[in-house]
Parts: sequence; structure tokens; C-alpha cells
Amino acid sequence: MTVPVADQTLTFPETTTLLEELRHYVAIPSVSRDSNPDVMRQAAEWLADQLTFAGARIEETEGNPVVRADWLGAPGAPTILVYGHYDVQPPGSLNEWEAPPFEMGIGEDIITGRGVTDDKGPVFIVLKVAQAFMSQEGRLPLNVKFLLEGEEEIGSPHLASYVRTHADELAADLVVSADGAMWRPSEPSVSVASKGLVSLSVVVEGANTDLHSGRFGGTVANPAHVLAVLLASLHDDTGRVAVEGFYDGVHELDDERRSEIDAVDFDEGSYRDGLGVDELFGEAGYSTLQRLWERPTLEVNGVESGGKYTVIPHRAVAHVSCRLVHDQRPDAVLAAVTRHLGGQPHPGVRVTVTPDAGGVPAYRVDRDDPSIRAAVTALGGVYPGQDVLLAVIAGTLPATTLFEEVLMAKTLFFSFSTADERLHAPNEFLRIRRIGEGMRAWEILWRQLGRSLGGAA
Amino acid sequence: MTVPVADQTLTFPETTTLLEELRHYVAIPSVSRDSNPDVMRQAAEWLADQLTFAGARIEETEGNPVVRADWLGAPGAPTILVYGHYDVQPPGSLNEWEAPPFEMGIGEDIITGRGVTDDKGPVFIVLKVAQAFMSQEGRLPLNVKFLLEGEEEIGSPHLASYVRTHADELAADLVVSADGAMWRPSEPSVSVASKGLVSLSVVVEGANTDLHSGRFGGTVANPAHVLAVLLASLHDDTGRVAVEGFYDGVHELDDERRSEIDAVDFDEGSYRDGLGVDELFGEAGYSTLQRLWERPTLEVNGVESGGKYTVIPHRAVAHVSCRLVHDQRPDAVLAAVTRHLGGQPHPGVRVTVTPDAGGVPAYRVDRDDPSIRAAVTALGGVYPGQDVLLAVIAGTLPATTLFEEVLMAKTLFFSFSTADERLHAPNEFLRIRRIGEGMRAWEILWRQLGRSLGGAA
Repeated sequence: MTVPVADQTLTFPETTTLLEELRHYVAIPSVSRDSNPDVMRQAAEWLADQLTFAGARIEETEGNPVVRADWLGAPGAPTILVYGHYDVQPPGSLNEWEAPPFEMGIGEDIITGRGVTDDKGPVFIVLKVAQAFMSQEGRLPLNVKFLLEGEEEIGSPHLASYVRTHADELAADLVVSADGAMWRPSEPSVSVASKGLVSLSVVVEGANTDLHSGRFGGTVANPAHVLAVLLASLHDDTGRVAVEGFYDGVHELDDERRSEIDAVDFDEGSYRDGLGVDELFGEAGYSTLQRLWERPTLEVNGVESGGKYTVIPHRAVAHVSCRLVHDQRPDAVLAAVTRHLGGQPHPGVRVTVTPDAGGVPAYRVDRDDPSIRAAVTALGGVYPGQDVLLAVIAGTLPATTLFEEVLMAKTLFFSFSTADERLHAPNEFLRIRRIGEGMRAWEILWRQLGRSLGGAA
Repeated sequence: MTVPVADQTLTFPETTTLLEELRHYVAIPSVSRDSNPDVMRQAAEWLADQLTFAGARIEETEGNPVVRADWLGAPGAPTILVYGHYDVQPPGSLNEWEAPPFEMGIGEDIITGRGVTDDKGPVFIVLKVAQAFMSQEGRLPLNVKFLLEGEEEIGSPHLASYVRTHADELAADLVVSADGAMWRPSEPSVSVASKGLVSLSVVVEGANTDLHSGRFGGTVANPAHVLAVLLASLHDDTGRVAVEGFYDGVHELDDERRSEIDAVDFDEGSYRDGLGVDELFGEAGYSTLQRLWERPTLEVNGVESGGKYTVIPHRAVAHVSCRLVHDQRPDAVLAAVTRHLGGQPHPGVRVTVTPDAGGVPAYRVDRDDPSIRAAVTALGGVYPGQDVLLAVIAGTLPATTLFEEVLMAKTLFFSFSTADERLHAPNEFLRIRRIGEGMRAWEILWRQLGRSLGGAA
């Protein structure tokens, strides 16, 4: 994990110069949820202007356009696809912001504004590294394609069809995402896995209409009761999922992985206090971080039935989702939960389970994958003496599955955003030092990848 | 149960004359839910005009006025208070009505229109009987006070304070309600009991906000799960309420009562089919009608938590209500359910149980009460050869409790509406023959009560 000094030779602009430039990008209120097409295009054009050296172009989709650029001047070297997005979350309640969300604020250690950490700042870092390579070395150390979309914050509704249609042009040995977030500001980390996701709805129906709870009470099955019984049966008392077959494909944590996770500096007390609960709760036999990183989960996301009036509701609905790990198969998990919820007759009601489309399997990269080794080396160069944590994203990243399926390429998350920087919330911020650290890390990463991925090109 | 012929001597107007008069009353759209004060007053004035012989007056409340009238020309005879209401339910969706709701339709056997059976028709019957007595005998057979309110369909929000303030003026030996409904058109019945009611909300709270079901899934207690466990625990598998102390004060059905109920002509098959369920369900060991009339019930009326998005909801709420029988004490039942739901700690969540105000105990009249005997005699006169069924109202009638508490008088339900006449629904109707039957029955009832209640005056 020693980083050759020769891999750290670029000179980057002064911070004030960089921030002044980023300020213009942040000022474009490219909120995809309230999409103003002109504003979205303005943000796309700002990006394209930064990528002229790679023949940037704006390509249409059925939604907001994507920005595409390719620098392919390193024949024989590997090719990566850099992914990021130019759209941002809505600012939300303006009076919760300490400064206007689209006027970037510059403090001593942080900059503030909508998008500074998700994902305008992290994408900006890559652009500046690429430009430094071009101006100082006349070339990049490997072939780089850029795919920067404008709909990430609304679930990327047109990304899949774009990627499928342009699969040949997007072909790469590896995707490197400038989106995502490192999990702690104090520890360099690389994500080696993220959880999968399946979801479904269960509907319990009784009589043909809501019934007067006096005139009919006690004589028909109550769908809200039956739903409660069904939902209560999904876990046992110890927090373990009680659905037969749910854990198929899940590897038991071995001692090595347990120790590795236990060695992570994770304070359950402040995690608990931050959430405002008296006590944490989860599957027996695991620590909170083990549950978060290595265990599949099943959560009731919502329940709806009747109301505050004296009826027997005729219908009760619950929405349930599961986060998957390892080799759990989305369709098998859906089938197991469906069987559990819908497989038993309940007198006087009909139970219907409807799986949602679009299950996503868990994603992982081998920790010995050259991309992970390159990322660890790059972070080692920027954060010398600190161990690089191999972390798990407990959330689900459908784009990784898309890239793996269509481009047959793994995705490396290499963002210099940190999970605590109020992503999606008022007063979003980015630590200023991360811009310099990020540029240096991308420099090392690209040089390392240029060598280590070589064989796969 | 033979009725003296001398008790059936009044002559009533022709049906066509009666219906023409009722048509004008039905035409006043006195919908209390969308209260137009002028229209409500117009309905009150229509009633007052019918009661001039008793010095009718319109009295203000903080809501719609009440119509009051007293005929007290029978010194030494008992006094009854006739209760009814002039307000009606909103017509609802107009395109479900086969004719305009406020233009009374006259068919061969039925009349249709909003309020014809609830409660304009049944009140009209009493007015016509009183007028027949006055014009043909110059007097009533007992003292009669009238209390006709205009807010029954919105829960009588100002009735209690009016009754308390005017308790002395309203003093009576018995309340006779022209509101309510006989349970079947084919069988004369008198209600000897109605169920009580208590309700409460249970709130389960976890973290300080909805949490991402990936980033936090499996590490904190999910309030929707905990609520499901709580609600599922309220009944055992056989449908019996599993709350300790819930059944305190409930008398076990003796063989006599079981046989009595079993003898009632009640078709479980058509009840089931009418509700659109495959199977009925309720507490083991009882028939549907036994459950409906004699067993207390606990129903979940509504549940609400999160939604169809991948979160761990931070809050889950349920609304629960119980219908009470016999000597169950509302406060004791509330305490038992509260203890059951809130008495056990659940790690990581706070459970709060909030009883609603205004619990109502079950109501009953002794089947040997003179008022019941008089009612049975009156119905026997009109429906000769048919047994009069002593029925239970499975709903809750707070006014009965109010009259019992403030006026120390029992309430006799003596309405000629029938439960199947689409009360509160489109195409509300009243069987025309019930008007004549009702007038004759009220005549007999008043004559009987004039004698039998004598001692209590």
C-alpha cells in the first residue's frame, strides 16, 4: 500500500480558484424533481464545457439529457466509465437553510449549498483532475468515458434504456462512480458491497364495504386484525426474520469478518442517540454494524387501513421491503415472503400479495479485485498511515446492477462526499479539504488503474 | 297480549292525504352535516306547526334549534318524552339515486327520499297520532312532551348540554324514541338492550424521523412491526379477546337465552352473502346472532404508518374500539385494554395509549318493564298472531345513557323504520304500510302506558 511518489505529481489550482468555479455550477438550480428543462440543460452545458477535451456532447433521453464525453487516446490501456449526475434534490423548506441554497457559502472548513456534496462537488473533482492531466501531461493515464445524468435524484427513470441502447459506446473495463458517499469523514473507506432490494404489497380484504363496528362487530374477520397477525409473524421475538427460506444464500459471518467489523470505529451509543431511541434493536447474535453490513433485513414500510371511526375496515394494506445480501436471489426471497404471507388461508378474508417489479440483487466486488486494490492504494496515498476500511453500503444502488448486467463491468464507488454532509437535507455541505484530497486520490487511482487493469482491456 | 278493542278506535287520514303532507316535510333538505341555518329552521318550523296543540316552540342551542312542545292535560297520568330528529344525512352521490332525494317518490309499496325512514317518516307517525287523539277525543291518554332535535346525524353535539340545562322541564317517566329501527320488516320487535362503546388510540414511536430502510434497516425497532405484534395479541386464534379483564362483568349465556336467540329467524347464509365474504368469523362457541347480541367485541378500526416507500416509519398508529354488554364498566375495559397494549416494554419504541373521552356503558331495559310490556301489547295489536321479538341493538345509543343519567328515565325505542330501508344510503325508503301500522301501534302504546305507568307519575 505504499504509493509511488511518481503517482502524485500533478499540480492543482488554488482552492480559491476552484471554489470560485464550483460556485457557478452550484448556482444553477438543477432540481430534477421540479424539472425546468432550460435550467437542467444549463447544468448539462456547464459540464460539457468542462469536458471539451474529450469531445463532450449532450445527448437526449426521454427525460433530462445526459452528458457524454470520451477520451480514448491510450490505446492498449484499460477503459473506465466515470458516472455522476448533475441534478440535485429540491432545497426543501427554505427557512431551514442558514444561507440561500443556490448561493454557495464558503466557510473556514466547509462549503454549503444544494448539491455541493451530492453530486456537484464530487463530479467537479474528477473534471479538475482530468483537466490537470491534459494540461500538464497532454494525456490521461487510461481511456476515460464520461456518463453524467440528470435524473439520479428521481430514480434515474431513463438511465437503463439509455445504457442499453448505447451499450457498445459505453463499454468499459470498470465503472467508477463519483456519486455515493464515504461513510465517515475520519476514515478512508471503499465500498465492497451494497445490499439488494425487493419489495411487495400485501392486501387483506374482507366484506364489500367498511362495516359499522357495532352492527357487525365480532361476526366477520377484521382485515386489520388479520394483517397485524401476518405482519407480526414475519419476525420472531429475537428480531430474526421468521420466513422459511428467507436466509437461503446468506453466508454465516465467520470469525474473521466479525473481528474485522468489530475493529471498525463505530459508536453504537452515538448512533442510538442520533436516532433518538432509548435502545437499538435487531437480530439477536449480531452487533449493530454486523446487522447493517452483513445481515439481510425485512421491514414493514407502511400500513394503511380504515381510520379513526368505528368501522370494521374492509381492506388493510401493508408495504414490505427486504434488503438482501450475498447470494440471496431476489425472486426466491419474494417467493418465500409471498408464500409466508399468502400461503395460509384465513377464514373470511382474501389475502393478495403483489411483488413490486425491479428486484435488485446484492452487489459486491471481490476485495482482491484490481479496482479495489487501486482504490485502497489511492486512499493510502492521501491518508497515509490510516487503514482503508472495506465498507458496505447498506442501501441499494440499482445502477451497479445495470452496469454489471449491460456492460459486464463492476462499479467502484469513489466519491469524496461523506455520509454526514446533509445529503438531501437543508444546509448540505462539503468539507473543503476533501476537494484537494479527492483530486489527489483520483490522480493516483487513474495511474494505478492504468497499470493494474491492463490485462482486461 | 290481547289488545282491548277499545284501545284501537282512532280514525286516521287516508294514506294519500298523509303522503301528500309528508312530501312537503321531506322536500326540506335539512342536512345537518352541510348545515344551512335557514333550511334547518324551516324543518323545525314545519314540525312546530304540527304541534301547535301542545304549545310548540323553537328553542336555540349553540347548533341547530330543538323543537319543544308539551301537552300536560292529563293530571295524575304518567308523562312521556317523545324523542326524534328533523335533520337528515347528506344525500351522497346523486347519481346513485333513482329519483331526486328531496322529491319524495311514491311507489306501490314504498315511498323513497332522504329522511323518509330516518327520521322524518317515523316522527310524522307520532304527530298524526297525537293530532287524531286531539281532534277525536280532545285529549291525549297521557302527558306527552316532545323533544325533536336537528343534529342527530352529526352525533348530537349540543343535545347533552340542552338536556342538562332543561332537565326539570323535560322530566318524564319514560322516553319514547321515534328514532331507531326495527330489525326486520317481517317480525315485530322491541329492543331491550344496546351495546356500550369505548375507544382509544395506540401510538408506537421509534426514531425521531422516518429512516432509510437500507441505511438503518435491521438496527432499530420498527414501530409498524411493534404495532402489528400489539394488535395481533388482542385476540387469540379462536376469535376471543385476549385482554385480561376484558370479560369482567359479562354474564355467560344461559341455555334459555341461547335457545331464545336460536329461535330467531336469522339466516347466516344470506347475512354472509350480503357482506360479500366467503365465511363468517367470530368468537368460538357462539352463533353469529349470539355474538351480535350478547358478546362484547374489540375491533381495530384503523391503522396508519409510513407508506409505499422504503423507510422504517418512525410512527405507527391504530384506532381501536370495543362494544360492551351487560355490566362491563367502560373505564375498566379501557384500563384493561390500555394495560394490555401499554403495559409491556418493547425495546427501542415508546407505546402511548390514549383513551377517547365519552365511554358509553351498555344499555338495557328489563324485559318486564311496563314500557316493554306496553310496547309488546301495542305491536301484538297491529301484528296479531306474531311473536314480538325482544331484540338487541348491537350499536350504541348515547342518548339512552344521557336520558337515564339526567332524567332518570329509560328509553323505549318505538320506530316503524326497518333496518333494511337504506338508512344513510342512496334510495332510502319506507314501507307505506308501516305508516298505518305505526299510527295504530302508537295509539295502543299511549293508551297502555297511560294506564300501566300510572304508579310512577
